[in-house]
Amino acid sequence: MRLRLTPREDGFYDLFADSANNIVTGARLLVELISDGADREAIAEKMRACEHAGDECTHAILHRLNESFITPFDREDIYNLASQLDDVMDYMEEAADLVVLYKIDKLPSDVLRQVEVLERAAELTAEAMPRLKSMRELNEYWIEINRLENEGDRIHRRLLARLFSGEYEPLEVMKLQQVVDRLEDAADAFEHVANTIETIAVKES
Amino acid sequence: MRLRLTPREDGFYDLFADSANNIVTGARLLVELISDGADREAIAEKMRACEHAGDECTHAILHRLNESFITPFDREDIYNLASQLDDVMDYMEEAADLVVLYKIDKLPSDVLRQVEVLERAAELTAEAMPRLKSMRELNEYWIEINRLENEGDRIHRRLLARLFSGEYEPLEVMKLQQVVDRLEDAADAFEHVANTIETIAVKES
Amino acid sequence: MRLRLTPREDGFYDLFADSANNIVTGARLLVELISDGADREAIAEKMRACEHAGDECTHAILHRLNESFITPFDREDIYNLASQLDDVMDYMEEAADLVVLYKIDKLPSDVLRQVEVLERAAELTAEAMPRLKSMRELNEYWIEINRLENEGDRIHRRLLARLFSGEYEPLEVMKLQQVVDRLEDAADAFEHVANTIETIAVKES
Repeated sequence: MRLRLTPREDGFYDLFADSANNIVTGARLLVELISDGADREAIAEKMRACEHAGDECTHAILHRLNESFITPFDREDIYNLASQLDDVMDYMEEAADLVVLYKIDKLPSDVLRQVEVLERAAELTAEAMPRLKSMRELNEYWIEINRLENEGDRIHRRLLARLFSGEYEPLEVMKLQQVVDRLEDAADAFEHVANTIETIAVKES
Repeated sequence: MRLRLTPREDGFYDLFADSANNIVTGARLLVELISDGADREAIAEKMRACEHAGDECTHAILHRLNESFITPFDREDIYNLASQLDDVMDYMEEAADLVVLYKIDKLPSDVLRQVEVLERAAELTAEAMPRLKSMRELNEYWIEINRLENEGDRIHRRLLARLFSGEYEPLEVMKLQQVVDRLEDAADAFEHVANTIETIAVKES
Repeated sequence: MRLRLTPREDGFYDLFADSANNIVTGARLLVELISDGADREAIAEKMRACEHAGDECTHAILHRLNESFITPFDREDIYNLASQLDDVMDYMEEAADLVVLYKIDKLPSDVLRQVEVLERAAELTAEAMPRLKSMRELNEYWIEINRLENEGDRIHRRLLARLFSGEYEPLEVMKLQQVVDRLEDAADAFEHVANTIETIAVKES
């Protein structure tokens, strides 16, 4: 019989995986939301539920952190990772809410490209979470997220240039800018998650 | 005779309490500033003095950190808590300064609700500081600040929707947006303070 | 013969110096960019090369951190310092890119004052890096960066007040605001660098 010395550790990996999978759901809702003919109010409502599910993951991680004597990596890194995953979800939910709240009629087509970057980043993050256990192939994930963040940044800048080109009314520009800025914040937040995972990997190596 | 083994530690608690009480003063100045018939220039001047007093608290904490061998909690948490309290004050002062600088005539009525949330958060933070010593009832404080941050967020989004509704001229919208965004930053900064206190409490538990 | 006990440590100091010197180059490119008659596209292109050089410094620091058993100061502080120097460069490059991308014709004259603050902060930061070794005169640097950040903040607020004064069209205001906000972000990022250096100095003292 082999004693499990760290009975509680697995829980953290599962909770981080839950949090990341929940973000995948959120990113897919964003893609739906900006599709033609979408029932935006209904999707924003689902997004809100998704954000609440994310909050529960975050609280479960922090609660476990509170009661665990042994943790699989530094307490501070667990705290940062949980908070940064939470940030991703918050920004995505805010973007969806603003589209509905501002009664935005038509979004520029490149917003779809922005959201596709988020969907890909979400999938990569969800795939990386189970690898925290073995600490394998995390470098590839980190490099790819950084590449996606650069791509998202380029799309975002081009989108702003188009918004300011004179094609839209000033008030419409301001509304759209809020939405594309929140989506860009979500892309940045994915990079913060990847940087924390890089920090954890550096310490373990 | 009982030896005091940690003669220097009390100083930190007092300085954090001073910093938080100073923020309460600042939040009350904000409420005054947006009241009808207020002498805005005079209040913004008081706000500037209040921000300077806050800077002195921050420097006193960092100076004491510099010369203390023993600290009541992790040096890094003391540093973060001092910086984050400083951030709250900075955002509140900036909001007040912008109201005067942009010569904003009339603020939407919901700005009062935003500022009332800040006042309540300031009071709760000031009440929590002395409890850092006993580490008691900090969870209630943390939950309530998170609730207030959510409420502030809701008010902020509704305010933006109103600003973008067509009721205001574009340039007026831009000025007002800066003010309500800085107030929202202050609400977020209160949450960062609460999260650091939660981190300290988790480590001590 | 004297044994070098810490053969790898020097590398970090050199890399931080490289990163800071690269930022000085970037700040000077910004001054050029906003001068009358500048070939903006060519300068923005040089800025992009400068940002890539900065990325390579950052990666070299993180790579060395990864493979070093002994580090001259806390791993986390090395990580923060590298990231924050990277942030400065990113904001400066973004500001330059936006000037070209938005086809901004004429920048308000006070933008030069904003950029001069960045140039001075860059020079001070580059001069401070070699002093990390001796930990001498870092306090003067920290105080001066904080003073510059306050000055930059004042210039930024006055610039915004002018942008909102009615002299410019709303869409022009929005473009200019993005540029001056990114320059202000760079000034803030210099302060974050200085705060991390202060943290390192506090731990060493």
